[in-house]
Amino acid sequence: MKHSFKNDYSELAHPQIMNALAAIGDRQFEGYSLDEYSFRASELIRAKIENTSADIHFISGGTLSNLLVISSALRPHEAVIACKSGHIFVHETGAIESTGHKVCTAEGENGKLRPRDVEAILDEHTDEHMVKPRLVYISQSTEVGTVYTKAELRELSDCCHKRGLYLFIDGARLGTALNSHACDLTYKDVAELADAFYIGGTKNGALFGEAVVIKTDELKPDFRFIIKQRGALLSKGAAIGLQFEALFKDGLYDELAGQSNKKAMILADGIRAAGYGFQYEPVANQIFPIFPDEIVEKLHKIYGFYDWQKVENKTSVRLVTSWATPENAVEEFLIDLREL
Amino acid sequence: MKHSFKNDYSELAHPQIMNALAAIGDRQFEGYSLDEYSFRASELIRAKIENTSADIHFISGGTLSNLLVISSALRPHEAVIACKSGHIFVHETGAIESTGHKVCTAEGENGKLRPRDVEAILDEHTDEHMVKPRLVYISQSTEVGTVYTKAELRELSDCCHKRGLYLFIDGARLGTALNSHACDLTYKDVAELADAFYIGGTKNGALFGEAVVIKTDELKPDFRFIIKQRGALLSKGAAIGLQFEALFKDGLYDELAGQSNKKAMILADGIRAAGYGFQYEPVANQIFPIFPDEIVEKLHKIYGFYDWQKVENKTSVRLVTSWATPENAVEEFLIDLREL
Amino acid sequence: MKHSFKNDYSELAHPQIMNALAAIGDRQFEGYSLDEYSFRASELIRAKIENTSADIHFISGGTLSNLLVISSALRPHEAVIACKSGHIFVHETGAIESTGHKVCTAEGENGKLRPRDVEAILDEHTDEHMVKPRLVYISQSTEVGTVYTKAELRELSDCCHKRGLYLFIDGARLGTALNSHACDLTYKDVAELADAFYIGGTKNGALFGEAVVIKTDELKPDFRFIIKQRGALLSKGAAIGLQFEALFKDGLYDELAGQSNKKAMILADGIRAAGYGFQYEPVANQIFPIFPDEIVEKLHKIYGFYDWQKVENKTSVRLVTSWATPENAVEEFLIDLREL
Amino acid sequence: MKHSFKNDYSELAHPQIMNALAAIGDRQFEGYSLDEYSFRASELIRAKIENTSADIHFISGGTLSNLLVISSALRPHEAVIACKSGHIFVHETGAIESTGHKVCTAEGENGKLRPRDVEAILDEHTDEHMVKPRLVYISQSTEVGTVYTKAELRELSDCCHKRGLYLFIDGARLGTALNSHACDLTYKDVAELADAFYIGGTKNGALFGEAVVIKTDELKPDFRFIIKQRGALLSKGAAIGLQFEALFKDGLYDELAGQSNKKAMILADGIRAAGYGFQYEPVANQIFPIFPDEIVEKLHKIYGFYDWQKVENKTSVRLVTSWATPENAVEEFLIDLREL
Repeated sequence: MKHSFKNDYSELAHPQIMNALAAIGDRQFEGYSLDEYSFRASELIRAKIENTSADIHFISGGTLSNLLVISSALRPHEAVIACKSGHIFVHETGAIESTGHKVCTAEGENGKLRPRDVEAILDEHTDEHMVKPRLVYISQSTEVGTVYTKAELRELSDCCHKRGLYLFIDGARLGTALNSHACDLTYKDVAELADAFYIGGTKNGALFGEAVVIKTDELKPDFRFIIKQRGALLSKGAAIGLQFEALFKDGLYDELAGQSNKKAMILADGIRAAGYGFQYEPVANQIFPIFPDEIVEKLHKIYGFYDWQKVENKTSVRLVTSWATPENAVEEFLIDLREL
Repeated sequence: MKHSFKNDYSELAHPQIMNALAAIGDRQFEGYSLDEYSFRASELIRAKIENTSADIHFISGGTLSNLLVISSALRPHEAVIACKSGHIFVHETGAIESTGHKVCTAEGENGKLRPRDVEAILDEHTDEHMVKPRLVYISQSTEVGTVYTKAELRELSDCCHKRGLYLFIDGARLGTALNSHACDLTYKDVAELADAFYIGGTKNGALFGEAVVIKTDELKPDFRFIIKQRGALLSKGAAIGLQFEALFKDGLYDELAGQSNKKAMILADGIRAAGYGFQYEPVANQIFPIFPDEIVEKLHKIYGFYDWQKVENKTSVRLVTSWATPENAVEEFLIDLREL
Repeated sequence: MKHSFKNDYSELAHPQIMNALAAIGDRQFEGYSLDEYSFRASELIRAKIENTSADIHFISGGTLSNLLVISSALRPHEAVIACKSGHIFVHETGAIESTGHKVCTAEGENGKLRPRDVEAILDEHTDEHMVKPRLVYISQSTEVGTVYTKAELRELSDCCHKRGLYLFIDGARLGTALNSHACDLTYKDVAELADAFYIGGTKNGALFGEAVVIKTDELKPDFRFIIKQRGALLSKGAAIGLQFEALFKDGLYDELAGQSNKKAMILADGIRAAGYGFQYEPVANQIFPIFPDEIVEKLHKIYGFYDWQKVENKTSVRLVTSWATPENAVEEFLIDLREL
Repeated sequence: MKHSFKNDYSELAHPQIMNALAAIGDRQFEGYSLDEYSFRASELIRAKIENTSADIHFISGGTLSNLLVISSALRPHEAVIACKSGHIFVHETGAIESTGHKVCTAEGENGKLRPRDVEAILDEHTDEHMVKPRLVYISQSTEVGTVYTKAELRELSDCCHKRGLYLFIDGARLGTALNSHACDLTYKDVAELADAFYIGGTKNGALFGEAVVIKTDELKPDFRFIIKQRGALLSKGAAIGLQFEALFKDGLYDELAGQSNKKAMILADGIRAAGYGFQYEPVANQIFPIFPDEIVEKLHKIYGFYDWQKVENKTSVRLVTSWATPENAVEEFLIDLREL
């Protein structure tokens, strides 16, 4: 296999991250994220989102981040609203349900949830014989590589708050979303419009780790109890804190996301130039070209990637780039594609 | 503060571990612990425990490991038996209860559970108005630094299996236990006597990570579903696998545990020589000397450590050493103690 | 309001049931369904289903029966397959999710799940990133008043067992289903084809209570623990046992279901004769005629019933009959309908 | 067996209750406790407790009532404080744990929890590595037949509210408690001092059913969702409402509790006169005399009752009376005891 475009977590960590970890040597630090690295990283994130009072928690992965925020926010009968393509609904083995909560889904459009989707679900849930939707979960960028614009996110946020719902954003790929040419949102905007979200490190250069941001005061109390109870309070929390310090002190986070997007766009342009279309408009680091099945079959012999869906008599595939994707891997892919 | 004896996870990772992580560079690997590093580490562990069919899973921390194994093994009405001092009962924020299961406790002795403790709990649980005990949880070494001998563990294991209970060992500090002069157990013995256990990496040189070993066939099916559902399936599972490869390929794991114990024994001997006794016989890397309160107070100004309990008019404190504890920190502590 | 067709639990209990309860006087009995009435009722049910080894448990209601059987049968990562119209998915406030399990849904047809629906869901659930479907839930009769025929149920049962799934039937309205002219199933057939099911008392003459039948051995162990843990082990379980004795000793159960269906059929025939159609073919005690909105509005002033759905520019409504529905209420309804 | 003193739910229901049920005939009513009987019963209870704004919910049994109130009140990491003898800790098959919450226990004294017990547990729970106690559960009368006095309950209530805890009273036997000569509490007092409690019907004349009273506003929202989700929203809720109407409209509830106590006191006096002592001072309808083992053995041949504990070389047994206990059964027991 020449290269794997399967996902953006196929490489361990950016060299600057590895160096930051190695530099710590045998220095001692406080356990459970109460260390100076985590404190500094939190300050850097609060500066980035321009919100001095948000709570920041460092968590080892995305599924944990999702289940912690959601199960902490909800009473037993309350439910989540998500897109049918939402990661929590499809690919987290019922993690949310395992904490006792139903996920109510809407079809959405291009992986995005719209106010009308939320309204329709609320209108159906009328009494105590049904769960009570209380939190809207979206992903930015979405599971199909699309991004919410500022207008879209504001509309959704307004709808949520008017109807008494929390808005939570799964930001496993927040970096590539906010650095997409199709997205006019800033980190500050995200913090203003969401009640809680997380900034994904694992898929953007870190060895592992996500920074959960809790903005809304109601969601803050006792969150560390929830983290510990679910097994997510890393004794060496400093290991995540110092990575986020490295990511946010000099702009590395955005730089890596930009590199990731850039390679995806080169790939997308080349695929389009070769005469193929896309299932979803490519704007970030996951793209979904549609190929005839024989092309897909041949590509599988040379590259790693996942088939996505049948699209009429063809197949869409998912190609994911990362900060680590070599430019020549992209170029070779395009050459191979044209020559197949 | 000259040095912290608070715990054995105050330093990030042993240099060999950091080097192993750094050496991987930008090589691509499969996600979710399906990588070659994890496969090799699993083989090394199977060789070490002399069991070729055990399932090995790499998990980011101890509380997660405990709750995964326990919640996977039990039906809803089934319960755990543990010591009152057991980590799952005291210091995991009700993690086991949060998965729906009660923890039935016995006083035990020196942090250890005896067959008679288990029998007494079983005798009290007679019908469907009470939970049904199904799994015995112990820690090796225990939360008070003691260790089970081979005879003790065999007795307990026999009792469990005679009474239809699984035996699960929390091995956050398995290394220091098996390398204690007071312990005659081998890794093979542990695997023979327990149904499942874990080998702790976090507290013995790793950056983070534990290796869960599932020996008994009944406990094996679908464990990866359970891991994913609880948010514990690390996308970059390779990051743990390669650390365990480093720990087990040349004996580093036992070497670090031995260093940790050695410093604890120097500390213990010095404390005894200075005229102080212990709440529990010191045999591994957690020791519990008893000091007059004014000594404790003075020590707190120079060293980091936790007070444990009131013992008559004195106080026992917990001193923990690790592979990274500098010998001169131990020596200085003893000098300071004598001079106070 | 002349009469309520809202549901089949608007009246307390059939006189024979009330008499059976009153007849017990101040006789003492064992608690928790270990009484002679419950034993005799269990025997009667085992005779009725022609299965001498099935376990019978008496439970106070349908939602409890569903959640007990399902949560007892599943491991944490396992899921249920149901129709989108399934009661557990729509109208039980996330009871199944509250026990930790996801409900995977299919559109189905006429409220019924077909093998192809089950297969499609299984085909989508391919690895540990998704829940593992393990039990199929259906209702007989369904939430839209339709019934599974013997051929349909056999096909579904075969599909389930071939694919390693349990088949569980919500029989809140099993009486009216099996006594429908459209249904060729016997109680024996149901017990042969399902792994577990319940025979609803609440909606067929009892004051309250359902008889859960567990046929498949794997599902039997420790079910009473599950009942107690969920708060469903009635101390005066005899109160349900004696009602089921009354329902099954002389054929009262089928008689009442037959009466219920008969009134529904008179109602359906009259409605059809008056020129109206149905959303679902009326075959049991829930029927769904489609009326113009102004008719619906006028009917609401005289009768109690629920609107069901918009059907083009009209509305389907749900009319439910019971053993207690007076024949003249049916006749008057038809007269009023013709005169509106 | 001449008579069973095993418990106070060995008989079905008081004749006035059976008559009230029978009198309803085939009258139709609204489902799910939204009927006129339940409304009137709620009003009667609010009048009795002299609190016009309390929420009243009718639930089929005690374990359900306990788990509903507790799981509704707590966030995931919050815990209950109870006596070691508390019903939820011993005899409900881990029902509270099955909703995710730990029960922290204290030894207490005579089955009662004291402020110092609560304080001691709070003092031990200092950070996020431990659960956060949030609700105190007590039983009135207790599992060992004792009662809290007004002073005791006030002290406990003050302690709870000063420390940010809810006080919840399991009133399965509230009637016999408040009608005990040893208890100076009124229903009004109970409502003033507790945040929530329930008035037990099942053990005091009703066929089945408990009235949950929620006084504190924070605990009120969405309780019906919780009821439904746990399978406890009885479709024929009217069946409980009308029983409570019968119990509270003319003082039947207190009358039956008084009868129950009276027989227990005759029994206690006779046992004492026969020369035997008690494990707990007998003040309500559960008494715990201590007999030599040979007496216990002989009594078991004639009467139904449970052995309680070994008390030195003797055995305490539990004798329970109810409104239905015949006076001559009590007299015969005393005669037999003297003649053994």
